[in-house]
Amino acid sequence: MSKLRVNSFAVSIDGYGAGLMQDVENPIGIGGVALMDWFFPTRTWQHMHGHEGGETGVDDDIAAQGMAGLGAWILGRNMFGPIRGPWPDENWRGWWGDEPPYHTPVFVLTHHQRPPLRMAGGTEFHFVTGGIHAALEQARAAAGGRDIRVGGGVATIRQYLRAALIDELHLAIRPVLLGAGEALLAGIDLPALGYECVNHACGVRALHVFLRRRA
Amino acid sequence: MSKLRVNSFAVSIDGYGAGLMQDVENPIGIGGVALMDWFFPTRTWQHMHGHEGGETGVDDDIAAQGMAGLGAWILGRNMFGPIRGPWPDENWRGWWGDEPPYHTPVFVLTHHQRPPLRMAGGTEFHFVTGGIHAALEQARAAAGGRDIRVGGGVATIRQYLRAALIDELHLAIRPVLLGAGEALLAGIDLPALGYECVNHACGVRALHVFLRRRA
Repeated sequence: MSKLRVNSFAVSIDGYGAGLMQDVENPIGIGGVALMDWFFPTRTWQHMHGHEGGETGVDDDIAAQGMAGLGAWILGRNMFGPIRGPWPDENWRGWWGDEPPYHTPVFVLTHHQRPPLRMAGGTEFHFVTGGIHAALEQARAAAGGRDIRVGGGVATIRQYLRAALIDELHLAIRPVLLGAGEALLAGIDLPALGYECVNHACGVRALHVFLRRRA
Repeated sequence: MSKLRVNSFAVSIDGYGAGLMQDVENPIGIGGVALMDWFFPTRTWQHMHGHEGGETGVDDDIAAQGMAGLGAWILGRNMFGPIRGPWPDENWRGWWGDEPPYHTPVFVLTHHQRPPLRMAGGTEFHFVTGGIHAALEQARAAAGGRDIRVGGGVATIRQYLRAALIDELHLAIRPVLLGAGEALLAGIDLPALGYECVNHACGVRALHVFLRRRA
């Protein structure tokens, strides 16, 4: 069966997966962009955004693995945008411009209904009000046997971890301190949920750890 | 002036510097010994304990740096032993046998007075009831211009960090999950205290990060 994966999710040394006070200027919260500074320079990211070049090596290899074999994505509503509460209109179409880097169906968790949104390049945003299990069910149906990636943010990954629904979790530990933000793993007893660290690797800009849930 | 350093302090992926329920069988708490499994195999550790051999490489180089240039140590009372409350007698002489691996004066934070304890090999335990500043003052006087190392445990390092008294902090991030324990950095805003990550390196068994407080 297709796996539910988290890939290339960056955390700081002090355990934060996002900064505080997300807004349109700070999609990952205050200081949060530093978490992504291992991913932006990679060839994988550069190519995803239509640029030539970019760095190769361990960080890029791992970034590329994270994008491979995906049939659907699940995002929390705050990863889709900074708007809170009911949708004022349908003008917000995500952080990513007309052609988002997903190229698959993307299921966005929200408490507020909204019609699907078809973007260029095959990305189709579906807004799911039924919670994490409903979103996973719809993503599996759409993924055609390929894997499903939970893109984030922190609160969404924590919900899927606590439900022991994530099969594989790759974290990119960034050698930075945020000081405050959204703690990814605080208060979650991963071994009790069946998770273990099965591998680790060192990139130039991140320390990679690979967690898996025992079948 | 001599620096106050933390070296070779291991934390799990989920941020714990010790497991729960420390006792005489579990000096680092339940599961905590896994945090040390990068240090035990090193040539540095093996030689500290009178054994030949041991592994060389990045982990050993960093372990050796952590032991160099020290004139005194500071330990929390629980790192000295599992006994809580008033000392029932003077029979407990630390976890380390007759010749502890410190070979300097060691200042043990406690609320309960106890006469100094002279061990083989130059280690002398002094029990300080005046708190972290008093212990640091006594350690500086004893260190003869060399550095002072805070050995731990978690609660002691957190006290010195919150007081911004630690100059350099090396953490060995172990690719293991504890699930529960004593969180080292939770709730401490290190950037606000002047700390930044200045370097990182990858060993075979740990991912090393080096924090420093801006002068």
